[in-house]
Amino acid sequence: MTRYQHLASLLAERIEQGLYQSGERLPSVRLLSQEHGVSISTVQQAYHLLEEQQMIQPQPRSGYFVAPGKTAPPVPPLTRPVQRPVEITQWDSVLELLSNRHNGEMVQLGSGIPDVTPSTIKPLWREMVRLGHLQDPMLLSYDALNGVSLLREQIARLSVDSGCRLDAADIVVTTGCHEALSVAIRAVCQYGDIVAVESPAFHGTMQTLRGLGIRVIEIPTDSVTGVSLEALELAFEQWPIKAVIVVPNCNNPLGFIMPDTRKKALILLAQRFDIAIIEDDVYGELAFDYPRPVTLKSFDEDGRVLLCSSFSKTLAPGLRVGWVAPGRYFDRVLHTKYISTGSTAVQTQIAVGEFARQGHYRPHLRRVRRQYQHNLGIVTGWVRKYFPESICVSRPQGGFMMWIELPEMFDAVRLNRRLLEENVQIAAGSLFSAAGKYRNCLRLNYASLGQCNEQAIRKLGIAVGREMDA
Amino acid sequence: MTRYQHLASLLAERIEQGLYQSGERLPSVRLLSQEHGVSISTVQQAYHLLEEQQMIQPQPRSGYFVAPGKTAPPVPPLTRPVQRPVEITQWDSVLELLSNRHNGEMVQLGSGIPDVTPSTIKPLWREMVRLGHLQDPMLLSYDALNGVSLLREQIARLSVDSGCRLDAADIVVTTGCHEALSVAIRAVCQYGDIVAVESPAFHGTMQTLRGLGIRVIEIPTDSVTGVSLEALELAFEQWPIKAVIVVPNCNNPLGFIMPDTRKKALILLAQRFDIAIIEDDVYGELAFDYPRPVTLKSFDEDGRVLLCSSFSKTLAPGLRVGWVAPGRYFDRVLHTKYISTGSTAVQTQIAVGEFARQGHYRPHLRRVRRQYQHNLGIVTGWVRKYFPESICVSRPQGGFMMWIELPEMFDAVRLNRRLLEENVQIAAGSLFSAAGKYRNCLRLNYASLGQCNEQAIRKLGIAVGREMDA
Repeated sequence: MTRYQHLASLLAERIEQGLYQSGERLPSVRLLSQEHGVSISTVQQAYHLLEEQQMIQPQPRSGYFVAPGKTAPPVPPLTRPVQRPVEITQWDSVLELLSNRHNGEMVQLGSGIPDVTPSTIKPLWREMVRLGHLQDPMLLSYDALNGVSLLREQIARLSVDSGCRLDAADIVVTTGCHEALSVAIRAVCQYGDIVAVESPAFHGTMQTLRGLGIRVIEIPTDSVTGVSLEALELAFEQWPIKAVIVVPNCNNPLGFIMPDTRKKALILLAQRFDIAIIEDDVYGELAFDYPRPVTLKSFDEDGRVLLCSSFSKTLAPGLRVGWVAPGRYFDRVLHTKYISTGSTAVQTQIAVGEFARQGHYRPHLRRVRRQYQHNLGIVTGWVRKYFPESICVSRPQGGFMMWIELPEMFDAVRLNRRLLEENVQIAAGSLFSAAGKYRNCLRLNYASLGQCNEQAIRKLGIAVGREMDA
Repeated sequence: MTRYQHLASLLAERIEQGLYQSGERLPSVRLLSQEHGVSISTVQQAYHLLEEQQMIQPQPRSGYFVAPGKTAPPVPPLTRPVQRPVEITQWDSVLELLSNRHNGEMVQLGSGIPDVTPSTIKPLWREMVRLGHLQDPMLLSYDALNGVSLLREQIARLSVDSGCRLDAADIVVTTGCHEALSVAIRAVCQYGDIVAVESPAFHGTMQTLRGLGIRVIEIPTDSVTGVSLEALELAFEQWPIKAVIVVPNCNNPLGFIMPDTRKKALILLAQRFDIAIIEDDVYGELAFDYPRPVTLKSFDEDGRVLLCSSFSKTLAPGLRVGWVAPGRYFDRVLHTKYISTGSTAVQTQIAVGEFARQGHYRPHLRRVRRQYQHNLGIVTGWVRKYFPESICVSRPQGGFMMWIELPEMFDAVRLNRRLLEENVQIAAGSLFSAAGKYRNCLRLNYASLGQCNEQAIRKLGIAVGREMDA
């Protein structure tokens, strides 16, 4: 985070906490500059950002004032899913969501697609051209079942940022994080087993569990601190749970980063009940704060964490390059990987591996992190402006997804159906629950302001208002 | 097949049938030219080919003679696997086979890798370069779950050659044929089910069944006409079989093409017992005769055939582009595909799709088919020359795999272990049986004479002889 962003988020926090009230005048630029020991222009940049986010308004010759009635909406409260194992449904809705994701006409507010247009991605294209010219037959053949060693070495190197000490030999490359999660689940669970998940949880994981005939127990989850460890412990006591699947960093869809103390406590809990942890870290590199948050895997002492990730959300999903660090389940993961896809395409593995080896990955991450954080501010402003007041909005600490909770009787599935006629698609909250809860919620993708622009949010806000009045 | 190849195979057949005896003089070039209405040089080319294959020997000024004692070895007899469902083992041996397939030092006689060096593959490289230059963000994003439409249209178009009338909408693109088979099996079977397979059967399919907790019943299979329908019917009567998995065209590992009448009979049998057929056609395009043999799918009336294939054996395995035409199981296959890998990499799909659309695929197929048929003749000659007499050798009708059966007590697993020390790897027959049968057999890959050269076969033949004497 740059200085001005840091200052802006500090001021935003104070406004949200009510230290500066609606309509109140904010400190002068000079005063803030002295107070925080930053330059005048840094303060000005911070104020401009807050203005863009519609949190404050300038008044000529008087300075900046808190925008009337624009204090931040509250965050969603702790979720309260059904407290017993359930079978997963919702495939039709997922299919509908997926079937639109390559529709160029559709404003994709519901997708999980990152922005793949930043200039920092250019070296990847160059690498693809180079490999095409190289005409090396090895690129067309099978490589190692666990993945090209160049790529595994880079993944191991990068994992240091997340507190891990992985060796290239600890990693199995997969065809995207989807396959990573799929093989991880299949390595530790069988048909009929029960798995605990955060609630809400990523619909792809849910569908994988459904396809494997695994029931889930959805655990109450806080939109700021993550899965309730108390509820999880209770579930471990009551049910023969085989594994818990969590997205502790930049959670999808809630956006939280689980505090380290809670991460450690989760590890201890899993140890106590001897339960495997499947950690989905696919958004972890996109945390707004640097250095990035550590993984559960970094606290793992006995190899019970299967760390799953990919370059799909940070670089490009169309590459289908992911990985899993399966700890003690390595052999089973390798077998499951073999029977799932044989091995992963060689050329894309080398392209990504070279991209990282040549040092292009971290600058690209910095670029997209900044962009997503900036977009979040802007889009939050638009949501405040165009949505009704009685909503809760998540405060993502990374990634490019926002979770909006509407009043209890609201029907986001119906809203989505109406919006599709206007070529706007959202992800209805019910996709993220096995039992179809969160029908009153929706997930918004703010990766690109080209898609998630003011007009789209305005359209969405009006449609939400209309739906609430109906 | 060119004219001279056709003539050579005719003469080879006559020698094998004993019409020309060992040491007997063959008709003169002029006589044959008149008899078959071909040019003198065609006959000379045919004789040269047979000479290369060591079936005949020239004698100066006397013409050509049948090589002494070099009539073809018999084909393997009908297999006799265990007649009850068994659980699959052999993973360690498969893993060992796989772990060497990207080892440049190793002579890969055991792999399933085609030759990826022919010049007819060059347009594919050019297409990759073009896509790299294009820098189209769509290439980095998700495309349709069932695959890029350009590619599906080409697959549908090409399927006409195999007697199918498929529409692009009937096809689900997968990450290689491995994923096609995996999702097809998972769409029709559950944990604990029983599936019938040819015996011997591809080890990848076997391991997939193992990983899914499915038992197999191995059906006796003839090395010329394919799976025994009589034994299959008996198995259908005796066991609650969910599906049958077959490779009817250019079978792996036996090389046969099932006659059309038997294909039709298999469909009728499956209809009668209401059993799904999973058809692996991954080698079908590599049949030596043109037009290529038809698929079971082409006789399918009620959508019970799940046709699986890929570009892995015909073009390049490293692309990981396969597909399944799942008939009535489309919805389940699509769901299983989603939970397996999400979607398939976009760029490789478009590269292959364009390669086919621009008309490069069929010339490439003609090129490799010719090469593999030519190699088969040469390598069969070397096997005759360097192997002991008491062996059976398959007569592949396409593809690039040869199956050699040695005397009953022979141990190909031990042979392989010894050969590895000399940097030669074969595929021991026991990989192809759930119950570890065929330990006295081995599979040989003759795709490239760079790998499968005279020295390697000589080394192998000597090692086999040594092992038989031991």
